[in-house]
Amino acid sequence: MSTFRELDPFTMLSPVPAVMVSCCDTAELAKPNIITIAWVGTVNSDPPMVSISVQKRRYSYDMIVNSGEFVVNLVGAKQCMAMDYCGVKSGRDCDKWADCHLTPVPAKGMARTPAIAECPGYLACKVRHTIELGSHVMFIGEAVGCGVQETLFDEDGSMHLERAELVTKAHGVYQKATDVLGFFGYSVARPDVLKRRMATYKRKK
Amino acid sequence: MSTFRELDPFTMLSPVPAVMVSCCDTAELAKPNIITIAWVGTVNSDPPMVSISVQKRRYSYDMIVNSGEFVVNLVGAKQCMAMDYCGVKSGRDCDKWADCHLTPVPAKGMARTPAIAECPGYLACKVRHTIELGSHVMFIGEAVGCGVQETLFDEDGSMHLERAELVTKAHGVYQKATDVLGFFGYSVARPDVLKRRMATYKRKK
Repeated sequence: MSTFRELDPFTMLSPVPAVMVSCCDTAELAKPNIITIAWVGTVNSDPPMVSISVQKRRYSYDMIVNSGEFVVNLVGAKQCMAMDYCGVKSGRDCDKWADCHLTPVPAKGMARTPAIAECPGYLACKVRHTIELGSHVMFIGEAVGCGVQETLFDEDGSMHLERAELVTKAHGVYQKATDVLGFFGYSVARPDVLKRRMATYKRKK
Repeated sequence: MSTFRELDPFTMLSPVPAVMVSCCDTAELAKPNIITIAWVGTVNSDPPMVSISVQKRRYSYDMIVNSGEFVVNLVGAKQCMAMDYCGVKSGRDCDKWADCHLTPVPAKGMARTPAIAECPGYLACKVRHTIELGSHVMFIGEAVGCGVQETLFDEDGSMHLERAELVTKAHGVYQKATDVLGFFGYSVARPDVLKRRMATYKRKK
């Protein structure tokens, strides 16, 4: 047991995903941008929806408002430094794709917004709700396209996102999600099921 | 570089936080409940706000509607099995506090909803917006109270949430956030700053 130190409320929820969101304005020659977002979450299962929260002053804000779409790109350990760079720099001053050696590829269901080829997976989203909350505007997007790297599937077709060394953020610090602790329902699983399932999560080096 | 396998859109965003949300109905003798939520995220910085998405059929749903409050409790590796149990079982059928050996303690700013004493930290939230999205209802809560375990502070007062072995969820699999990769701004940090900051994240065993 233990003791809480009371603090002024702050954005303490941890660990949150750290993702790269790609977006593009509507003009025919518009160049896509990347913005790093930790204020992101799944908000609905059916239909699948995610929310991202963006400050109005950000270069990507108008792009998302104008196009009504954005792509959430998952970040693995290999993309961590690029993700940080895309959170620190502005697309007004640099080309993040070139600076980070990232490659735009078409994302299903998007008019013009690409996915990032190097990332473990992407969710292509159409904006369904826009809610002003204070410092940030929340966009709720419905996923209309989805891709996961072929390398994250076993031969039997099972998907293993847990092998992607996905990046999380806790109070300004980036960490990897590793060390499988269990699976949904493991607290009440039969011993033989527990043993069989846990064996499938052994890390492949 | 690599290749995406296209999939039907699903709730693929990973890794998401896996938290235990405590709640309590308004009746004087109402007993608090715990519900495990992975559809949670930070949605605003100022004021600090989080969203949680809950299905209407869940036992906790009416409690949150009636009380207008909930507490988000962070989950460390030690609470992972309890967190899973609180996601699989219903408070209609059992007392999750007793079954999981969890202890309710007062949470700042809450009328009746306790925090979970064993967890690394909590955010006590008042519901500000309620949005029906389909399978789930999203509650947007403003944090009015916050507590972090004393053990997560250094002697100089710096907070180290990254030492809490916080639990994430990726496609039904629970993992720990470990292995510090960097910090906000590390991609553009001076070498001496990078070295000094990274040294503070060495894991204490």
